[in-house]
Amino acid sequence: MRVTSMSYFRENIEAMTAYVPGEQPLGGEPVVKLNQNENPYPPSPAALKVLAEFDGSSLRLYPDPTARAFCRVAGEVLDVPPEWICVGDGSDDVIVMIARAAAGPGRSIVYCEPTFPFFFTQAQIEGAEIVALAANDDFSLPLDALAEANGAVTFVVTPNSPTGATATADELDALAGKLDGVLVIDEAYADFADGNALTVARRRPNVIVLRTLSKGYSLAGLRMGFGVANPALQAGLLKTKAIYNVGALPAAVGAAAMADQAYHDECVGRIRAERARLGEGLTGRGFEVWPSEGNFLMVGVPGGDGKAACEGLKARRVLVRYFEKDRMRDKLRISIGTPSENDALLAAIDAAGIGRQP
Amino acid sequence: MRVTSMSYFRENIEAMTAYVPGEQPLGGEPVVKLNQNENPYPPSPAALKVLAEFDGSSLRLYPDPTARAFCRVAGEVLDVPPEWICVGDGSDDVIVMIARAAAGPGRSIVYCEPTFPFFFTQAQIEGAEIVALAANDDFSLPLDALAEANGAVTFVVTPNSPTGATATADELDALAGKLDGVLVIDEAYADFADGNALTVARRRPNVIVLRTLSKGYSLAGLRMGFGVANPALQAGLLKTKAIYNVGALPAAVGAAAMADQAYHDECVGRIRAERARLGEGLTGRGFEVWPSEGNFLMVGVPGGDGKAACEGLKARRVLVRYFEKDRMRDKLRISIGTPSENDALLAAIDAAGIGRQP
Repeated sequence: MRVTSMSYFRENIEAMTAYVPGEQPLGGEPVVKLNQNENPYPPSPAALKVLAEFDGSSLRLYPDPTARAFCRVAGEVLDVPPEWICVGDGSDDVIVMIARAAAGPGRSIVYCEPTFPFFFTQAQIEGAEIVALAANDDFSLPLDALAEANGAVTFVVTPNSPTGATATADELDALAGKLDGVLVIDEAYADFADGNALTVARRRPNVIVLRTLSKGYSLAGLRMGFGVANPALQAGLLKTKAIYNVGALPAAVGAAAMADQAYHDECVGRIRAERARLGEGLTGRGFEVWPSEGNFLMVGVPGGDGKAACEGLKARRVLVRYFEKDRMRDKLRISIGTPSENDALLAAIDAAGIGRQP
Repeated sequence: MRVTSMSYFRENIEAMTAYVPGEQPLGGEPVVKLNQNENPYPPSPAALKVLAEFDGSSLRLYPDPTARAFCRVAGEVLDVPPEWICVGDGSDDVIVMIARAAAGPGRSIVYCEPTFPFFFTQAQIEGAEIVALAANDDFSLPLDALAEANGAVTFVVTPNSPTGATATADELDALAGKLDGVLVIDEAYADFADGNALTVARRRPNVIVLRTLSKGYSLAGLRMGFGVANPALQAGLLKTKAIYNVGALPAAVGAAAMADQAYHDECVGRIRAERARLGEGLTGRGFEVWPSEGNFLMVGVPGGDGKAACEGLKARRVLVRYFEKDRMRDKLRISIGTPSENDALLAAIDAAGIGRQP
C-alpha cells in the first residue's frame, strides 16, 4: 500500500497547531505564579512521607497496570467501588482515552467555550466534528444546546476554567438523560466547589466524572488523575489505555494524598477563604469578578485590555493568565495563591496602575 | 448530529479486545519473576539518591512539558541534540503519539510477527490497515517485504521481543530509504545489544528510534521513555503528545539514571554474561536457544509444549512468558535474572522434568 499523501502525518494532524501550555518561569528571579491554577500549599505531609520513604529498588518492576491499591483508597474517599475507577497519567490521559475510544469522523465532540482547550485538540487529532457552543451570557452551560447537539462525546467542566461557572448535579443528570453519547464531566476543580456530580456517574450509564490530584491535592507535578464511571463504560475506555500509564510513584503518593482528607480540607478551606478575600480586593479596584467555585477567579479588567494588564503584572513578576480568544480579551484568570501572594498581586495591580486605587 | 451507532464507542473499539500484560504476582509467597523482561538489579544508586532527596513540595507545580533537563542528559549520553528527544510516559506513550499522528484509515501500520503486540493494539484503535508480516525462518526481519508493504508507519523492534533477533543499522538505513512513511525503530532492548540504530535516526528524515528506561536502567515502575528523531518529525508527533505526559519524578530520577553510565554498563555486563551462561544451561537440557541480544532468551521447549512448561514452572514459583500465538506455542520467553534466579529456574526445570537432565 502506498502512503496516500506526501506527508508523514495525517491530514488533520498537519492542519492543526500544538497546544501551548501556561508559561513556566525558567529559574532566575522569583515570581508570584498565579497562571496555572496550581495549589499554593505543599502536598499532604502524609504523601510527602510516602515519597520520602518509597522503596526505589521496587521501581525495577512494572507497576500494577490498573493501580488497584490507589483505586481502593480513591473509591473509599468518594464512596464508589474501586472497579468504577480508571486511573490516568493526569486526568488529561483519561480525556485522551475517551477521545480515542468514542470520537472520530462521524462521531462529534461537543463542548462549550470558553473552556479547557484540550478538548478542541483531541477533536482535531481524532478528526471528529467539533461543535463548540457558546456559554450563556453569565457563562453558565447552554444545557438545551448541548442536549440538542447530542455529541458522541460531550465534555463539560464544572467548575469550569477559566470562567469559574458550575452546573448542578440535577442539571447534568437531566443532560445525561438526553444524550445518546458519552457525557464527560470534568471535575478538576470540584475540590473547591460546594457540590459535585458523582451521583450522576453512579446513576447514568453514559457518564464519566474526571478527577485530578493536580489541583485540590497539590500534585500537578505527579501526574495522577482518574475517571469514575460504571464498569461497562470503563471496559471500552480501557481498550485505549496505555498498558502501564500510571507509574508506581504517582499511585503510591497519590493514594496517600487522597487518604489525608483532613489536610485536603484544611488547604481547600484556606483557598476558598482567600478566593472570597481576593475577590473583594479586586472588586474594590474596579475589576468585574465572576462567581467562581474553582481555585481561581475570572475577572474583567478595568479599561478592558486583558493583555496589557497581564503584561503589566508580568513586568512586576506576577504571572496571571490571559487568553487570546473571544469573550476573554478583556479578562484575566487569576489563580488563588497564599495570602501573601494575593497581597503581592494586589500591590502589583496598584503599582501598575491597573484599575482604581482601593 | 445524531450518534450513528447504538454504541458509546467507535466500531473499531467495539470490535477489539484489550491488551493483556504479563502476570504480576499479588504478594504471598516469593516467586522468581522472569516473565516481563524486568532488570534483576536495582536502579542506579545515583537515581535512588535523587528520588530519596526529591523536594516533594515542588510537586505542587506542573512539570516542564518537554522535560528539557532530562533531554539534555539523554542527549549527551546518546550524542544527539536535546531537541531531537521527545519524552514519553514510557516509550509506549511515544508509540501512541506516532500512531495517532500518522496512522489511521488509509494509512497502514506494518510490522513483523512475532513482536510487541502493542502495535496491533494501536492499529486497531486507529482503524489503520494492519499488515502483519511473518518473520523469516530464523526470526530475522523480512526486509524486502517490509519495504514492499511501505506502510504509513512501519514498526520494527531490535533486538526484538520475544525472539531476540536484531537488525543492523545498515539494514535499517536501507529500509528507511525505501519507505515513504515513518520507520519506528523500537530499541527498548538496545542497552543489551552489540549495536544500535541511532545513526539511522540522525541520517533519515523519516526515522524515530525509541528508547526506554524500563529495561537497561531498571526503572519499569517509573514510566520513562523517549524517542530520538529530527525536529521536523518531532513537530508532528508533539501535536499528539499530552501536555504534561511526563511527571517531575520520572524526569528527575530518569536523568540521574542515564547520567550514571558506569552503573548501567556494569549491570548490562552482568546480564549479558548470565544470558550466555543461562543459554548454555538450557541448551544442555535439550532446549533450542535462539541467539538473543536482549535481556531474555527465546527457547524451544523439549517436547514442544510451551504452555505446559510455563505452567509447570509456575507451579514451582518461577514465572516465564508463554505466548498463545503462531510459532510461539512450542517456545518460552525467559527474562535473564540474577545468577541465583537463573539457577532457580534451571532447578525448577529439572524438578518439573522439562527436558533432559543436564
